Amino acid sequence: MPQTSKRSWIMPQSPIRKLVPLADRAKERGVKVYHLNIGQPDLKTPKVALEAIKGIDREILEYSPSDGYKSLRLKLAEYYHRFNINVDYKDIIVTTGGSEAVNFAFMACLDPGDEIIVPEPAYANYTAFAISCGAIIKPVLSSIEDGFALPSIEKFEEQITPRTKGILICNPNNPTGYLYTKEEMNQIRDLVKKYDLYLFSDEVYREFCYTDSPYVSAFHLEGIEENVVLFDSVSKRYSECGIRIGALVCKNQSVKESVMKFCQARLSPPLIGQVIAEASIDTPAEYMQEMYDEYLERRNFLIEGLNKIPGVYSPIPMGAFYTVARLPIDDSDKFCAWLLSEFEYEKQTVMMAPASGFYTMNNVGNNEVRVAYVLKKEDLEKALFILKKALEVYPGRTK
Amino acid sequence: MPQTSKRSWIMPQSPIRKLVPLADRAKERGVKVYHLNIGQPDLKTPKVALEAIKGIDREILEYSPSDGYKSLRLKLAEYYHRFNINVDYKDIIVTTGGSEAVNFAFMACLDPGDEIIVPEPAYANYTAFAISCGAIIKPVLSSIEDGFALPSIEKFEEQITPRTKGILICNPNNPTGYLYTKEEMNQIRDLVKKYDLYLFSDEVYREFCYTDSPYVSAFHLEGIEENVVLFDSVSKRYSECGIRIGALVCKNQSVKESVMKFCQARLSPPLIGQVIAEASIDTPAEYMQEMYDEYLERRNFLIEGLNKIPGVYSPIPMGAFYTVARLPIDDSDKFCAWLLSEFEYEKQTVMMAPASGFYTMNNVGNNEVRVAYVLKKEDLEKALFILKKALEVYPGRTK
Repeated sequence: MPQTSKRSWIMPQSPIRKLVPLADRAKERGVKVYHLNIGQPDLKTPKVALEAIKGIDREILEYSPSDGYKSLRLKLAEYYHRFNINVDYKDIIVTTGGSEAVNFAFMACLDPGDEIIVPEPAYANYTAFAISCGAIIKPVLSSIEDGFALPSIEKFEEQITPRTKGILICNPNNPTGYLYTKEEMNQIRDLVKKYDLYLFSDEVYREFCYTDSPYVSAFHLEGIEENVVLFDSVSKRYSECGIRIGALVCKNQSVKESVMKFCQARLSPPLIGQVIAEASIDTPAEYMQEMYDEYLERRNFLIEGLNKIPGVYSPIPMGAFYTVARLPIDDSDKFCAWLLSEFEYEKQTVMMAPASGFYTMNNVGNNEVRVAYVLKKEDLEKALFILKKALEVYPGRTK
Repeated sequence: MPQTSKRSWIMPQSPIRKLVPLADRAKERGVKVYHLNIGQPDLKTPKVALEAIKGIDREILEYSPSDGYKSLRLKLAEYYHRFNINVDYKDIIVTTGGSEAVNFAFMACLDPGDEIIVPEPAYANYTAFAISCGAIIKPVLSSIEDGFALPSIEKFEEQITPRTKGILICNPNNPTGYLYTKEEMNQIRDLVKKYDLYLFSDEVYREFCYTDSPYVSAFHLEGIEENVVLFDSVSKRYSECGIRIGALVCKNQSVKESVMKFCQARLSPPLIGQVIAEASIDTPAEYMQEMYDEYLERRNFLIEGLNKIPGVYSPIPMGAFYTVARLPIDDSDKFCAWLLSEFEYEKQTVMMAPASGFYTMNNVGNNEVRVAYVLKKEDLEKALFILKKALEVYPGRTK
């Protein structure tokens, strides 16, 4: 048989994927699994979005434009203006989920061997898209002791080589929930300017900021407007991950033209998803406020609960709906597998994401897990209790 | 500003894309443009598909599995069985359009520098996906004189090098409409077997075969079951290009596992599209028959009409809804642009796809155009008449 590609050999399998069969078997044994591992919001999709589906009245489900419907792009521009992100609809390319925005940005901007600097822990699929285009991720470590704040600029500069083409940030951050401050963003801006880099900025959790400080988008940074490539998605904020609508936002004409070649090759983003996304942008403020209040309450409840468990530590994340917590364990891959295959408490257990999947370096974050708060408070309460019970008896406990 | 990637520089702009602004300007001048250039069927999407949209009753539009809903995969397996394509649902990976199936197959199977042999003229976006993964297309020329039959096996063997990893065919063919015979398919099988190659087989026009000979799928070829990677899409057969649902069908475990890594990185195919696609597979036989009869009638009408125009020649395509015709002109890129920017007949003109976009070699097929018959007969008749009038006065006419 012919061989598969080398890039597919080095593409890492996410540690969560490896746990899925264990979770399935636990369920088969009648064990209830609390899913703290996923990024799929449990909140209902807004009514305006669901009604938009019913309202579709077309005779032919035809291709849409490769850069998406103009009406959606105009609506997205209007949405970004609410956040003082001053972009024109012509700066917005509709993509098949935020994932495709990352993929096309890398394909359009990075050559094989090019390097991008990424603060870690980071969203695991960035690695997959970097491998797809042959680029190399150079990690700079943020640490739980600093609440996953931006590593010092010196750490970034140490990683800069002639092949460095960009910096990638996720703000608010998946997996840590960290929200970069104005000062940190300015440091990034200076670096981007000094070395003339791309700034890839994943801002899909924009609506989930639990602080009074103003949210800082990469597009708020002066003097690097042409360097910024922003990734967005309607998935998280409207609880509609399945429709696969995202956006790549960029003011750099040459990047836009390059990205469009990849867009044209795949013909068009999903038609029905675009109709839903466009309607979603008119989601009433009350829905957004309720969602916000709900996540804020869950965050407070979860973080307090985690820190009450002996040996467990979590910083207080200011954004998104995740936290990375440190547990008193030998190895989070082992612990998370053990929770699903060997432990149960009154026919219940919890599933979490081992942090190893968020670091490209080996042997970092071995005692960390990502915990998502996409469960209602009562379930979070039960999950926390089960986690506490599990840590009491886990054979690999360290302290 | 940082530079864009070299792969984006070499990615060709399709000649049709270059014509779009000209067509827009023609329309602004009040000229009616008959679109013979596109692959978007004009027939209505089946009622079962449209009704499936109305029937969607979900509270959360959540991620679907990375390989697609099992119910859709089971239904697709059932559909393939009708064509004696004996695959299990586990051999079917749902993709975001047929385009993603091509992209992921190349990403999973081909390393930078690897070569695939492709009979040309061929669908232009194969080149884009080859460039994306760094692979090289080695063309073998089919010719209009032979009705675009499979080039001789010697021509294929001349192209084989140590880097040859596969052969790519599109059957029935876009752009030529050619349908490979059992004998030709067996020749391909022997070649695939002899050199242990992948056989990438794009079969999205399966339902459009205008001959009594049985349709030959790559999966009908004995002894190369593990080498075949089939691309499919619901777009053309159910007139639903916009929903972006395709499939990659493969029995090779190692290819499937590699492809799944790319699927997982992009999380999931479109949710609503999958619901529509699943319903579409139950499209009544009458719809399929009417569609078939309609295209057959159009084909006969178009080919006869083309061949009646002095100096024009088109073979009789046995599949898909395209033909590549030879015109008595100097250069089809120039002619197609001239039709839109300088010619009009009673405020009407036609738009066609210059064949240059379907050849990776330069200076091949300069007097050929692709004509799609996705217009109703009355419009085809008018379009043919306008083409005749245009050729009478075109300054670059050759004979």
